[in-house]
Amino acid sequence: MAGQGRTHQEPQYGLLTAIASVAGVSLSTVSKVVHRRPDVGAATRARVEELLVRYGYIRPGEPDPSVPRQIVAVFRDLSGPYTLEVVRGIVDAADELGIDVVTGTTSQRSISQWLEECEALGAAGLIIVISMLAEENQRRIVEQGLPVVLVDPLSAPTQEIPSIGVTNWSGAMDAVQHLLGLGHTRIGMVAGRSHSLAGGARLHGYRAALEEAGIAYDPAIVRSTDFDFHEGLLACLQILRSDDPPTAVFAASDVQALGVLEAARQHGLSVPGDLAVMSFDDTLVAAMACPPLSAVRQPFGELGREATRVLVDLAEGRPPASPRIELATQLVLRTSTSAPRSVRAEPAI
Amino acid sequence: MAGQGRTHQEPQYGLLTAIASVAGVSLSTVSKVVHRRPDVGAATRARVEELLVRYGYIRPGEPDPSVPRQIVAVFRDLSGPYTLEVVRGIVDAADELGIDVVTGTTSQRSISQWLEECEALGAAGLIIVISMLAEENQRRIVEQGLPVVLVDPLSAPTQEIPSIGVTNWSGAMDAVQHLLGLGHTRIGMVAGRSHSLAGGARLHGYRAALEEAGIAYDPAIVRSTDFDFHEGLLACLQILRSDDPPTAVFAASDVQALGVLEAARQHGLSVPGDLAVMSFDDTLVAAMACPPLSAVRQPFGELGREATRVLVDLAEGRPPASPRIELATQLVLRTSTSAPRSVRAEPAI
Repeated sequence: MAGQGRTHQEPQYGLLTAIASVAGVSLSTVSKVVHRRPDVGAATRARVEELLVRYGYIRPGEPDPSVPRQIVAVFRDLSGPYTLEVVRGIVDAADELGIDVVTGTTSQRSISQWLEECEALGAAGLIIVISMLAEENQRRIVEQGLPVVLVDPLSAPTQEIPSIGVTNWSGAMDAVQHLLGLGHTRIGMVAGRSHSLAGGARLHGYRAALEEAGIAYDPAIVRSTDFDFHEGLLACLQILRSDDPPTAVFAASDVQALGVLEAARQHGLSVPGDLAVMSFDDTLVAAMACPPLSAVRQPFGELGREATRVLVDLAEGRPPASPRIELATQLVLRTSTSAPRSVRAEPAI
Repeated sequence: MAGQGRTHQEPQYGLLTAIASVAGVSLSTVSKVVHRRPDVGAATRARVEELLVRYGYIRPGEPDPSVPRQIVAVFRDLSGPYTLEVVRGIVDAADELGIDVVTGTTSQRSISQWLEECEALGAAGLIIVISMLAEENQRRIVEQGLPVVLVDPLSAPTQEIPSIGVTNWSGAMDAVQHLLGLGHTRIGMVAGRSHSLAGGARLHGYRAALEEAGIAYDPAIVRSTDFDFHEGLLACLQILRSDDPPTAVFAASDVQALGVLEAARQHGLSVPGDLAVMSFDDTLVAAMACPPLSAVRQPFGELGREATRVLVDLAEGRPPASPRIELATQLVLRTSTSAPRSVRAEPAI
């Protein structure tokens, strides 16, 4: 994985041998000139340099202007609206820089195979999205100085590998504070898995907002699931069947929130009338939900742009200012949240 | 855009010049040997062939085993669930063949720039998804013999460029026949634009199914829009406000069907109780809709596999059996369709 652009070391080996032959010197002398080593006479150096230019030799690490630069973006899989937003963010950002994006998954090739592919392609580097990076791969990336950027890693990587995500904790706090502000005091959560960085931070944000409002955390109305529609649906049905069901549910992702909407429908509750629903992500499905979802927006375009920028900087030898970059989220209000019936009914009492 | 894999013509030009120098022959003689032309003496040919092997020259069109093969897949943009399904289909299929996919859009680079990029990358070829291919680009592709495959082209391309889609007409017929079979006789449609191949075929399928059932086509309950949520929502609200509103609506795409669900909600209709909703696509959002959508499923995995396979065949000099390939759709029934109230009420009367 060279610094910039693609390098043609293999096919050029033959060219160096041919140049040695034309110049009447050894391959080792040509190699010394290529690597700008001092122990070559001035006349020989000038003659070899002239042949290198004439025959179009490209030094290792030098960009080959005839070949476009590439980066590789690898995902666990290409399902789910989150993935599409991140693919788009990276491709759009790369496009602006004139860089091509090879898009792949870890379903057929492992991270270590992708590291090799990246090198074989002469790509500038690798963006790895939502992954658990094995110790061995982390060590390899650090030791070999491979340009790698992680987006939303599942676990905290070594500080030497830059990672980019969003302000999951404060975004979740904003979401719950919005529900509290509407008058909800009984707020459930369909949370993510606590062993994932994002899932854990969003759950802690929920708890912090309740605590600040003086409301006790009640595990009876909190369920942790994968970021998955069916799991979100089942979890919400359990929450709705609890002894003291909530008037609002905060879901840790859009796909879980869609499950919450379907759970409400199956339970005969109207949204937001009987149940307010708040989501996290704001992927394309949030605005197209029925009813459209209020959500904490992740800045996917900026996430892609930042990942691409940090990767290109790394490849060109400039480490990021901080190993962990968190971009700010934003609250987007649509139809799925309103005040609870009790609050709306008060003026009439 | 060479036959297989990447070729290094530019950097190798220097190598040929060097080989000519070593062999003491002209560059033109070396070029004749490379292209296996007869007008070169046997001894000279043998000497040059030997140098070509020794210095690792790769003939144009011959695969370079040191560089992975790539294809380029270009989309109008990377928004919408359809795009994600097609990206996944292509990437998964290419992965199985050990081919990398460069994913891009036409938002920053034109099709003709992508054709050039494809050539610069030495990619095997280009898959163009949902596009209106200009005459000029079609001519260029045909004249230069560039390996290009179209997925769901907006307009019918020249027969010399292979295109792949699904059985839009019969899929739409199946959808409407399912609604007729449930007892619906008043069926509206939120159609696609008739100038698009897929949109036109789906509308014709709807009309054909009604005609076979002896039901007159009523333009008052049919609206054409882009494959877009908000346009689908507005179109459905207009249909629901007509003098004789339908008991079922067939939407030409998932995103329009989501608009239909939201229109029903805004209109105070329950789905499927008051309004049955049938969709076309079955992207990830169909199963996560509220309620989950019955839909005509496009085989996205096979679409991607077929596009990749035809492209690789083309690149290797094997044209497809047919210039237009249509893959079969399949009806997937979920919650959004049921019999109309009138039919369900009958036994009680």
